[in-house]
Amino acid sequence: MARDLRQCLFERNQEAYMEALAEMEDGMDAKHVFSQKAFNEQKMQKVNLFETARMFCDLYCFEPGQEQKTHTHAGADKIYYVLEGRGTFHIGGESRELQEHSIVMAPADVEHGVVNTSGARLVLLVYMAPKP
Amino acid sequence: MARDLRQCLFERNQEAYMEALAEMEDGMDAKHVFSQKAFNEQKMQKVNLFETARMFCDLYCFEPGQEQKTHTHAGADKIYYVLEGRGTFHIGGESRELQEHSIVMAPADVEHGVVNTSGARLVLLVYMAPKP
Repeated sequence: MARDLRQCLFERNQEAYMEALAEMEDGMDAKHVFSQKAFNEQKMQKVNLFETARMFCDLYCFEPGQEQKTHTHAGADKIYYVLEGRGTFHIGGESRELQEHSIVMAPADVEHGVVNTSGARLVLLVYMAPKP
Repeated sequence: MARDLRQCLFERNQEAYMEALAEMEDGMDAKHVFSQKAFNEQKMQKVNLFETARMFCDLYCFEPGQEQKTHTHAGADKIYYVLEGRGTFHIGGESRELQEHSIVMAPADVEHGVVNTSGARLVLLVYMAPKP
């Protein structure tokens, strides 16, 4: 039955088919990262993609000028990957602007933060382990 | 002195400037993921981007037809993000083709594998914690 539904959806609209599959709670939990973006004029938004007892994976969505203030996690490493836009990263006392497709790690116990110093939206894929 | 060098490079070539910064061993360890790609006709390649006692982050690079055979990690979660191309993911007995910008988790103790069933190269960003 589910197989027939999938075939039907596939024939009508491949995109809808992929989305329907991704939404099926009993199946593989795949997501299209850009469909998960969420922005708020008040502050940068964190959208959780995956979370277990051992790690989390979020999207961070910044309007121009928004920031994640510099902070530190004891014993947990964070990785930022720039999906869209560019931002200024502060890690361990150094600051650098990173663009789309750049990846950087903020190791455990090292202070880190991000500011969207560009005029466009900034979207990051963020991974941290272990979960704080 | 380093500041002068950076300014000089910046004025001549912004791309070279960014790369020079990324290579500086005493600075922030930022990388451009696509500059790290490596392929081998014999088998899929794993390129480590970051590794700590708690997790690793790799690029997996598949020529058409190459695969990561289905396997399981006890107590460690893996996340696959499709940077380039498309591949067929096997997770927990389900198989699905995922395209660029899709992300999926293989939770701890769940069997998982990837096959590049497309005619083009496949590049994945892979996170795992804790490190096995």
